[in-house]
Amino acid sequence: MLTKQIVLASRPSGMPTLENFEIVEKEIPAPSDQQVLLRTLYISVDPYLRGRMREGKSYVPPFEVGQVIESAVVGEVVDSRYPSLEKGDLVTGMMGWATYNVTEGSSIFTLEDSLQPPSIALGVLGIPGLTAYFGLLDIAKIHSGETVVVSGAAGAVGMTACQIAKIKGCRVVGIAGGEEKTRYLKDVLRVDAVVDYKSHTGVDALDKMRRALQEACPKGVDVYFDNVGGVTSDAVMFSINNGARIALCGQISMYNSQELDTGLRPQPFLLVKTATMQGFLITHYFARFGEAREELAGWMKSGELRHEETVTEGFENTPAAFIGLFSGNNLGKQVVKVL
Amino acid sequence: MLTKQIVLASRPSGMPTLENFEIVEKEIPAPSDQQVLLRTLYISVDPYLRGRMREGKSYVPPFEVGQVIESAVVGEVVDSRYPSLEKGDLVTGMMGWATYNVTEGSSIFTLEDSLQPPSIALGVLGIPGLTAYFGLLDIAKIHSGETVVVSGAAGAVGMTACQIAKIKGCRVVGIAGGEEKTRYLKDVLRVDAVVDYKSHTGVDALDKMRRALQEACPKGVDVYFDNVGGVTSDAVMFSINNGARIALCGQISMYNSQELDTGLRPQPFLLVKTATMQGFLITHYFARFGEAREELAGWMKSGELRHEETVTEGFENTPAAFIGLFSGNNLGKQVVKVL
Repeated sequence: MLTKQIVLASRPSGMPTLENFEIVEKEIPAPSDQQVLLRTLYISVDPYLRGRMREGKSYVPPFEVGQVIESAVVGEVVDSRYPSLEKGDLVTGMMGWATYNVTEGSSIFTLEDSLQPPSIALGVLGIPGLTAYFGLLDIAKIHSGETVVVSGAAGAVGMTACQIAKIKGCRVVGIAGGEEKTRYLKDVLRVDAVVDYKSHTGVDALDKMRRALQEACPKGVDVYFDNVGGVTSDAVMFSINNGARIALCGQISMYNSQELDTGLRPQPFLLVKTATMQGFLITHYFARFGEAREELAGWMKSGELRHEETVTEGFENTPAAFIGLFSGNNLGKQVVKVL
Repeated sequence: MLTKQIVLASRPSGMPTLENFEIVEKEIPAPSDQQVLLRTLYISVDPYLRGRMREGKSYVPPFEVGQVIESAVVGEVVDSRYPSLEKGDLVTGMMGWATYNVTEGSSIFTLEDSLQPPSIALGVLGIPGLTAYFGLLDIAKIHSGETVVVSGAAGAVGMTACQIAKIKGCRVVGIAGGEEKTRYLKDVLRVDAVVDYKSHTGVDALDKMRRALQEACPKGVDVYFDNVGGVTSDAVMFSINNGARIALCGQISMYNSQELDTGLRPQPFLLVKTATMQGFLITHYFARFGEAREELAGWMKSGELRHEETVTEGFENTPAAFIGLFSGNNLGKQVVKVL
């Protein structure tokens, strides 16, 4: 059985390029006992994968040069030697950027039929949705009536965070880049205010962003759900309230930097406001994925929560879709549809 | 009745100078019902008072120009119209930098006779000791066997923090400036390792401090009790372990700065290590002061905890003693003995 695979050809320095990836063709074995053969339908490309392309330990082990990149994938069972799975089943799990994968049946999950498209399992009902859920409810502990600021608000995690905070009765302010995204946040997701960081640039970007946020948050910021870091996060600090909680979910603005991340130190703000800043990883919540998925699915069925995605077609375009994340090309979850 | 008072003559810009303070003489009334007249014995000078000399709100309201500076004081009752206090009682409370104060009897506390000198009530058994106690046990939640780094380790709060962490079975690393302080920390307080920030300066101070901390913390840093901020804190970030807790108690290196505090952003470290950074204020723990004082006093009586102080003599030298805090002139608690 032949499969196409995308391997890490070389480690990116700074922004990844297409040359850092290589498509190879490889023979894969038939599934052995307890395994399944899957045809890939959708591949999730995620900013955090950039960290795994570096040498040295991040929070997950690095990809080795020559290794197949792995991320969340939706696939269809082609051949099964696992008792509870059969040909035609739609499943999701962590596996290779490949047109076919052989994997342990115990490591994958069957999709709920009623929610479409299947790529929802990579977005609102997948790691991004779960990240928003636990980040807001467990780390930041949002309460009704609080002002919640979300950076990267038009991305997969941010968009879900905005919606969950609305469901919980918060005043939601989304930070995103460009007219299309900010309009979407206001008109479709009905957030209470938006800040377009792309219209506040230049040497005085911090001052401009700071003022824009103060205007958008007249009662200050109780919770900041941070996906981006950098100057955007610096600017938020000037508006935090006493007892503010800052959930650090991602720092996408820094992932391609070769330098130490320098800018405004948040410590003086955290001190004076007795505020908390906390990094978190979704993998720590594995035992609670079930309850969270159930609640998220319930909100989808009741129409309170929507999945939005940007679909790139064609397996070979996976690296380009991944690289595009760092220019903010995607509205909602960026997936690749394997034709 | 005449009293000398020290008022804020002008707001400091940058490092405070003697010109920012003025000694005035003023008539104070006899105590009315429920009040007491106190002769001041010791005045506490504290870094956080610098924040109150700024215009605009910090975590406590600012001193107005012309207003008497207030801090913790130990005094002797000269005249009492409060039932449970009588002439000769030693008490402590928040009141003016003055040779005499008239204050509400309900706002002050009687000192425990058995612990000497009375200025202990401004140090280990006062706000500095309580700050170390709640910062380590409630905010940072130290556990036996963990590595605890304390900056400003030879100051009033830091010294108590080092000792409490030792009592709780932690490996303690103290950061302080100069031979005298680091030797004291090692020889008298028996901390496990010290880093002298004054021997790691220059354009590559961050690199030097980073290496010194990595050497001093071979198993990484589980808890960082931060009194100073700045480059010292930047350097600690490179050594934090998964799940590290950073208690922000003070940022003395920044209190006199006129600029925004810029340097290494800690967010990428906190994210990758799922670490928490939390600002706290001792005033939030008021309801638990009793239990904490009791435990601290118990450790003093058993010889596990010592009070150390630097005494400046003469009421009129109070401003100079305060200013000296920012050059690190004090070992332990800086007090003024009013002769």
